[in-house]
Amino acid sequence: MAVIVQKYGGTSVGNAERIYNVARRVGAAVEAGHRVAAVVSAMGHTTDELIALAHSVAARPPDREMALLLATGEQVSSALLAMALNNQGYQALSFTGPQAGILTDGVSLGSRIVEFKAQRIHACLAEGKVAVVAGFQGQDSNGEINTLGRGGSDTTAVALAAALKADICEIYTDVDGVFTVDPRLVAEARKMEEITYDEMLELASLGAKVLHPRAVECGREHGVVIHVRSSFHYNPGTLVKEAADMEIGTVVRGIACDTDQAKIAIIGVPDRPGVAARIFSAIAGAGVNVDLIVQSIRRNGENDILFTIAVADLDKTLTVLEPVAREIGARNVFHQRGVAKVSIVGAGIAHHSGVAAAMFEALAAEGINIEIISTSEIRISCLIAAERVEEAVRAVHRRFSLAGCPELKV
Amino acid sequence: MAVIVQKYGGTSVGNAERIYNVARRVGAAVEAGHRVAAVVSAMGHTTDELIALAHSVAARPPDREMALLLATGEQVSSALLAMALNNQGYQALSFTGPQAGILTDGVSLGSRIVEFKAQRIHACLAEGKVAVVAGFQGQDSNGEINTLGRGGSDTTAVALAAALKADICEIYTDVDGVFTVDPRLVAEARKMEEITYDEMLELASLGAKVLHPRAVECGREHGVVIHVRSSFHYNPGTLVKEAADMEIGTVVRGIACDTDQAKIAIIGVPDRPGVAARIFSAIAGAGVNVDLIVQSIRRNGENDILFTIAVADLDKTLTVLEPVAREIGARNVFHQRGVAKVSIVGAGIAHHSGVAAAMFEALAAEGINIEIISTSEIRISCLIAAERVEEAVRAVHRRFSLAGCPELKV
Repeated sequence: MAVIVQKYGGTSVGNAERIYNVARRVGAAVEAGHRVAAVVSAMGHTTDELIALAHSVAARPPDREMALLLATGEQVSSALLAMALNNQGYQALSFTGPQAGILTDGVSLGSRIVEFKAQRIHACLAEGKVAVVAGFQGQDSNGEINTLGRGGSDTTAVALAAALKADICEIYTDVDGVFTVDPRLVAEARKMEEITYDEMLELASLGAKVLHPRAVECGREHGVVIHVRSSFHYNPGTLVKEAADMEIGTVVRGIACDTDQAKIAIIGVPDRPGVAARIFSAIAGAGVNVDLIVQSIRRNGENDILFTIAVADLDKTLTVLEPVAREIGARNVFHQRGVAKVSIVGAGIAHHSGVAAAMFEALAAEGINIEIISTSEIRISCLIAAERVEEAVRAVHRRFSLAGCPELKV
Repeated sequence: MAVIVQKYGGTSVGNAERIYNVARRVGAAVEAGHRVAAVVSAMGHTTDELIALAHSVAARPPDREMALLLATGEQVSSALLAMALNNQGYQALSFTGPQAGILTDGVSLGSRIVEFKAQRIHACLAEGKVAVVAGFQGQDSNGEINTLGRGGSDTTAVALAAALKADICEIYTDVDGVFTVDPRLVAEARKMEEITYDEMLELASLGAKVLHPRAVECGREHGVVIHVRSSFHYNPGTLVKEAADMEIGTVVRGIACDTDQAKIAIIGVPDRPGVAARIFSAIAGAGVNVDLIVQSIRRNGENDILFTIAVADLDKTLTVLEPVAREIGARNVFHQRGVAKVSIVGAGIAHHSGVAAAMFEALAAEGINIEIISTSEIRISCLIAAERVEEAVRAVHRRFSLAGCPELKV
């Protein structure tokens, strides 16, 4: 008998029939002798509808009230799934995030989980009942309702699995698992059987979108084995765990791309200590996450600083950046939409000579210009023109022969 | 500076525009220098929609899960009203029933309020902010969410007013106040300026529907002055309070009628101790409320027992009643749909000779047959054929000259 946490997203619980099917799936795990806790997102487009409702009564709804409003979405789907389970003969209790014992840090929207006091869920499972937990939400030490922000239900599920010391955390989604590259871009994309947390983290951050990075981080920290799998069939998906059984020689594990990028270049920045800090603290103050940063050294005591951000943050970033650029005496600020980031990910990439060169060659052979290069221990990213991204991904995938062949061909 | 609790029903918060208007109304009380706590119901038909959703996933949704589901309705409207208030420049915080400190007795649907620990609401008002409380809900001592059942938001408002020692509890509705009789039935119906709790309780129980009986009981117990008024204009409505300034000589204060009644007659009940108890405990066991009960003594050691119930409970009642009737040796059970109850209400009615006779005369003059008569200290009820109810109400209203003339014409 295993303890299993299962997470179902908004599409999986999008209507009565789908909730019925999720209940059957949960029930199958119960029939197999397991103890099951299910975490659910809000039904379908509920969250977007609630946000629209909020904006229909207030131009700028306060975050605190927005959290209270949005939390109802998952409360509805958790109650409905518990009802459907009971209707199918499985005893089940639903819990709001606060009831489940999720203690958050007090940020109304986008809180982190401080602690998961899972006694009530423990007791529910010990009575042989299914626990259904509303994802995406918790309560701070003052009793205020907080939401966990985007991807919050994934994080709820993994944190619950950690608190319960569950054998596995299953994340149900509409794809079969984690692929070497987006199957919509490259037909030869291959599903991976296993992947490490670090690799998954890079893939998730880079736009693979099957599993939220915060959930992966939480899983790594607590050693929770995460199974990303399809809610449409019973085939195994991809296991995310510490020591993946590495396929021999495969260093490049997957390719990710992100097309919602904008590039900003600050030209002629005086080479003085503290200048970069001044720039990026101003941007951080506006709540914008900076992605790639490259500083190129020029002559005459001047540098160019290039960085990328989400294109949605461009206007906000320029607003705070322009006065700072004048203040520090930079010569110019340029920006560019329509850039994309293509990345290869694999544990130990930095220690395999020739991997980076092979990627650059693959792009060069297609005539694709690389604007920025950034590397980490397990990742090499290249910024290119957005309209070339599909060609780039295919070329790199072909170059590293990820489509079923276990050897890395560098 | 007064402390005011205002309650807005589902129609008042039915859409964004109406929520905006409610916020203006709350704001006007703030501008007048008052501290305001607002209690809201779920928007429009939300509760019915949630019930339908529950039945789409489960034939018999468990009460516990239903309470969790339904509680979201008021949470949504409270968050939206707080947003609208903030948008109009009034600081406001919304609270779920559990956050507001409403401790309930553990019945999932139809709980009673055990205690109102209003510290958070107190603190909110003390900071000069409006508190917006989700009606109809609370939390029991195990942290389970309970709903208060029909009329629960009225009860939330009156209980909050008691806990805050508020100067007044305003119940906003779509009528101008409490009328001497339903204005849809009798054009001469007159709005009352004041009415006692007991009178209101009789009128509410009898179908006047502007204010839930439990809320009136709660008001009476804690001495909360309740102001039933229209949300469409600023004219005063009707004050419900202990010592109404009685209009001289007016004993009959109002007329109520209830057309959703069914009559059951058990004929030939052996006159033995415990027989009535046996009958009515069986009916109570089926969860049916019995309204009027009359026992008429017959010859030969037999009685007839007549009583009325809501017509919706008729089948359920007959199912439990028939075996009991056989068991106690009653001769027959008859039932009749299509009966209505017309009642006159007024403090001290029992001590004014001639009032009952005047009512019976008024009905007799119209040729309306009285099937059952029941009286209390402050009420006289007559059961008649449902199709005569409008004539009956008009005749009685005319007889007691409730349309603007202060003297009782007996």
